[in-house]
Amino acid sequence: MTNSANLRVGIVGVGRIGRMHADIVARHVPGIELTTVYDADTTRARLVAADLHVDAASSAAELVASDRVDAIGICSSTSTHLELIELAVLHGKAVLCEKPLSSSLDGVEHAVDLVEKAGIPFMTGFNRRFDPGHQAVREAVADGSIGEVHLTRITSRDPELPTPEYLQGSGGLFMDMAIHDFDMARYVAGPVVAVYAQGGVLIDPAIGEAGDIDTAVTVLTHENGSVTVIDNSRLATYGYDQRVEAFGSLGMASSGNRRLHYAEVTDGAGSRRQPLMHFFIDRYAEAYQREWVAFERFVRDGGPSPVSVRDGRAPLVIAAAAAESLRQRVPVEVPRGLG
Amino acid sequence: MTNSANLRVGIVGVGRIGRMHADIVARHVPGIELTTVYDADTTRARLVAADLHVDAASSAAELVASDRVDAIGICSSTSTHLELIELAVLHGKAVLCEKPLSSSLDGVEHAVDLVEKAGIPFMTGFNRRFDPGHQAVREAVADGSIGEVHLTRITSRDPELPTPEYLQGSGGLFMDMAIHDFDMARYVAGPVVAVYAQGGVLIDPAIGEAGDIDTAVTVLTHENGSVTVIDNSRLATYGYDQRVEAFGSLGMASSGNRRLHYAEVTDGAGSRRQPLMHFFIDRYAEAYQREWVAFERFVRDGGPSPVSVRDGRAPLVIAAAAAESLRQRVPVEVPRGLG
Amino acid sequence: MTNSANLRVGIVGVGRIGRMHADIVARHVPGIELTTVYDADTTRARLVAADLHVDAASSAAELVASDRVDAIGICSSTSTHLELIELAVLHGKAVLCEKPLSSSLDGVEHAVDLVEKAGIPFMTGFNRRFDPGHQAVREAVADGSIGEVHLTRITSRDPELPTPEYLQGSGGLFMDMAIHDFDMARYVAGPVVAVYAQGGVLIDPAIGEAGDIDTAVTVLTHENGSVTVIDNSRLATYGYDQRVEAFGSLGMASSGNRRLHYAEVTDGAGSRRQPLMHFFIDRYAEAYQREWVAFERFVRDGGPSPVSVRDGRAPLVIAAAAAESLRQRVPVEVPRGLG
Amino acid sequence: MTNSANLRVGIVGVGRIGRMHADIVARHVPGIELTTVYDADTTRARLVAADLHVDAASSAAELVASDRVDAIGICSSTSTHLELIELAVLHGKAVLCEKPLSSSLDGVEHAVDLVEKAGIPFMTGFNRRFDPGHQAVREAVADGSIGEVHLTRITSRDPELPTPEYLQGSGGLFMDMAIHDFDMARYVAGPVVAVYAQGGVLIDPAIGEAGDIDTAVTVLTHENGSVTVIDNSRLATYGYDQRVEAFGSLGMASSGNRRLHYAEVTDGAGSRRQPLMHFFIDRYAEAYQREWVAFERFVRDGGPSPVSVRDGRAPLVIAAAAAESLRQRVPVEVPRGLG
Repeated sequence: MTNSANLRVGIVGVGRIGRMHADIVARHVPGIELTTVYDADTTRARLVAADLHVDAASSAAELVASDRVDAIGICSSTSTHLELIELAVLHGKAVLCEKPLSSSLDGVEHAVDLVEKAGIPFMTGFNRRFDPGHQAVREAVADGSIGEVHLTRITSRDPELPTPEYLQGSGGLFMDMAIHDFDMARYVAGPVVAVYAQGGVLIDPAIGEAGDIDTAVTVLTHENGSVTVIDNSRLATYGYDQRVEAFGSLGMASSGNRRLHYAEVTDGAGSRRQPLMHFFIDRYAEAYQREWVAFERFVRDGGPSPVSVRDGRAPLVIAAAAAESLRQRVPVEVPRGLG
Repeated sequence: MTNSANLRVGIVGVGRIGRMHADIVARHVPGIELTTVYDADTTRARLVAADLHVDAASSAAELVASDRVDAIGICSSTSTHLELIELAVLHGKAVLCEKPLSSSLDGVEHAVDLVEKAGIPFMTGFNRRFDPGHQAVREAVADGSIGEVHLTRITSRDPELPTPEYLQGSGGLFMDMAIHDFDMARYVAGPVVAVYAQGGVLIDPAIGEAGDIDTAVTVLTHENGSVTVIDNSRLATYGYDQRVEAFGSLGMASSGNRRLHYAEVTDGAGSRRQPLMHFFIDRYAEAYQREWVAFERFVRDGGPSPVSVRDGRAPLVIAAAAAESLRQRVPVEVPRGLG
Repeated sequence: MTNSANLRVGIVGVGRIGRMHADIVARHVPGIELTTVYDADTTRARLVAADLHVDAASSAAELVASDRVDAIGICSSTSTHLELIELAVLHGKAVLCEKPLSSSLDGVEHAVDLVEKAGIPFMTGFNRRFDPGHQAVREAVADGSIGEVHLTRITSRDPELPTPEYLQGSGGLFMDMAIHDFDMARYVAGPVVAVYAQGGVLIDPAIGEAGDIDTAVTVLTHENGSVTVIDNSRLATYGYDQRVEAFGSLGMASSGNRRLHYAEVTDGAGSRRQPLMHFFIDRYAEAYQREWVAFERFVRDGGPSPVSVRDGRAPLVIAAAAAESLRQRVPVEVPRGLG
Repeated sequence: MTNSANLRVGIVGVGRIGRMHADIVARHVPGIELTTVYDADTTRARLVAADLHVDAASSAAELVASDRVDAIGICSSTSTHLELIELAVLHGKAVLCEKPLSSSLDGVEHAVDLVEKAGIPFMTGFNRRFDPGHQAVREAVADGSIGEVHLTRITSRDPELPTPEYLQGSGGLFMDMAIHDFDMARYVAGPVVAVYAQGGVLIDPAIGEAGDIDTAVTVLTHENGSVTVIDNSRLATYGYDQRVEAFGSLGMASSGNRRLHYAEVTDGAGSRRQPLMHFFIDRYAEAYQREWVAFERFVRDGGPSPVSVRDGRAPLVIAAAAAESLRQRVPVEVPRGLG
């Protein structure tokens, strides 16, 4: 059943994260309607389509071109993003594209050109901006509650080591994992002009043999003179650790972890609570849903994108600078206007 | 699309709470499938059915009798519960029935007879038992972590005054609101043998004029000698306040409130967090879903009901005793085996 | 060295609690000076005097009469309180008297008469009123932050069973332990007009054999119609559990436990904090000190006593009513003006 | 009254911090006895001596040489430290010396030589090591609870801007303020081999004009490969912000701030707690006392110093490296064995 007042969405790529997006669009978001899905794995596409009572397109091109699709969610592998953005531009469709926009700086530059020339509504899928807690930190900055920002602290640690295969194609810790934190730093404290990064292999030698690091500290200098410190680890035994704190001239705002529940057992040995959530989709369940709410409002009302294509580019530029800093062991400037 | 391995569920009554149940069954619970809905308001039934891609039955009897329905969720008004349980018994269907089973003690007695003679799988919808936090309290009792229970404390306060119309048919604070807490007390500390209740009209004289109270304290004595204290208010300006604590010979377990997020802003005036959630469906979102997971497992595997028909009766018996205690200003015994 | 601008204090009774008071007066409180101590155990008195560089009086009467003593702290055994109050009245000295003022209602009535006729500055030593946290709860009531009080919850559990000898002379759980909570209830929500108490022997049969209970729930009805619920246990394995919560028409104020530190260790099994403080003198260290600050200000500036002799009487009257309620199993009224 | 079994202590310098130490020694610490004080301001010395019933020496040399002094507490201005250490060495007295040992690297090097050649019991006054919370973090590392340390995070922010005069002689943010954090990093994660520092003037241009910074981030690399991140601000409007977190292969330990009390008021606008403590002596009251307990035990039992003279040197070496890094905008190595 199609309600023509709704934004009709097609999702390209319904693997783990795409399926999650499809579920959200199909079920929870007012003003949005899922009409079509596509996946390179056609069996998977058919199953998801049946499950959600929507169409399965026979190609991505067909989905983007469909007159039952007003907006596309790009959830397929990174290497396909650019081509899909080109299709969306061709057909004038709105886009919500999962991060990273591209695995190369050239690619992301191309995406910026395409989107800005075409003027299509475009949003980069940095879900953490829509977490109610992190958003409250941003709001405390934006509304002046904490005055001018001086220091931002971000802790971002994953609950499980990625597989060697995953690591291979990941682009490394900065590109794959810290990219979210670079975006969060920009969300809270604005453009970045310099990066200093330091890290090592403290968890698993195999990661080092693959040319990557598993533990990192990154110091970002913002255009406004403030500094962000990020610490990353590939393996926190106690769960997915996600914290943001902004400190300013008038106070501090912080957003902590969430737990499945807050029950506490206290006995002679002390008080115990359960560990953190482990799965990013559980931890950021509200964020993913609110991302679509924001997207619908943006496409409907216009105005600046909640996470523009340039916002999609900056974390990649910063990640490249971080990797350079790690190699050179000095702070590296980020080209003005790109960070 | 029907998967015959799934438990096929029909929901009777798709108003606010029934719609919520229908959404959960349709979308989230593995091993369960929503096939049919019914509502006395046929327009509503059709809309929900279309939305969820399921059938709309033309009568409750048709829904219960349908060979596409293995189990029914009873979410219609309390006055219809008994009749629907009779139909379920007639057709040998499993039942998950919203509380209260009936608005009268005779009615609920009849329900017990029906269900126990027929031997159908039956579960009463006391959702709070499935809240992960409250459940952790119960588990700390059940697994001996806190030793033998001595004291249980329950705070249960609503975020908004009910309308005068609602109050009219509600059966009063004990029957309508504290009934959940009576169940929670039994869940944590077992059968109840005596009740002392005290209360008054502190919020709104109109509630007093309607013959009800808006603020109450109830003391339950359990068969094991332990005591539960419950405090209730019809109006907590800061949200839906739901806390459970069990204290025993070896320690204490407690389950607190949940917030949308845990961000905190700290300045010279102190630290501030947002208020509690206001809407019970938000607060107990996981609980409602886990309730269906428990129901599916119970119907599939058999064994004792997670919340039996007798568990559905006891809180009503306790509520009646509480009302009696309030009138007589003395503790009132609960008939052995019923509390 | 005596500074004549200071309030010069003599302490009668320097056992555990009296020694603590003497230390505070000798060392921490501006505007107060310890000049003299007395103890029935003269060796103890001499040791403390030497330690604190003050005089040891050879009798309580000598101490009270001394022209180097403006105010006396009564920290000796309860049976001596009345006699010492009489001496203070005779010599026109200010008094800070440890609770309870007397072990009998007649005794405390006599104390009220003596003090009110003489008009000496008199303060009852209910230390918990001076705890910064509990005081913040009281202030939230007094300044209207939470509107009119509807419900007050007090949890008060001791970390260790008293010895059989101690229990013998203690006057029972209500008189010995809950008396603090009765005072706290009055401090937060005002005069009490009725009491319902319930309790049992859940911890140690020996307590029952001695005619006492070890676990109790007490419901107080206040003159303003609000209700206080108190739960007491003689044995909380995890420490000294002291919580106060006031709920009203506009919100809620609560004061929780304190720990030695708030470090937390989190691993795959969850997060752990250390247990609560065990010793009441550690838990209420600030309270005891602030009690003397308040006493000094009261004696210096006049005005109503922070904890008047009637405030010292009321909890005993309530304790007697609670004991009566426990025996009769009904709520018991507190004589108007005494609760 | 002198008890010869006690460690007899003389305090040199009884200004704000010295007076606090004198009070602690005089009053709280078992096994220690204050016998003598000295201050360049002889009036002040006499007043404190009278107040605490101890002797006032007429010179520091007299105090150190006194046969009523077993150990000296050096609490005078930094410029006098070396000379006093020399006197202590001459007379073979134990020393507890406030940080910094000296304002120059040469000076501190000289202190190391003196103390190590003489073999006197020597402890540097890094009080934060004795905070129960921070100590619990260290213990979680030492006992293996969190496995091998990978990352340490320290937040250290002062509640008030220092005066221009103070800043003048302070040695700058790294030497004056972050020195505590450098010690904490070493306490938690061991020796330091490299430093990267970044900072700016975000609070008060006058600080910049005086050649200092008011906001800084420092990244320490430890010998074990782990990394510590420190953020400092000269002005946190909400109080004295002191947090330590260690993250390792098995978990995380963290120590947070303390408040005067933990009462919370919740209404429709949210929950509010009071701000943090503002005064370092209040915040670290237990730490200062436990420092003396540790000192007494160390002098009595021997063994390695809880905070050796080398532990007193390392933070100065690190501070110098940090200042160098700030100037050069590159990471700076710390000479092996000194960090």
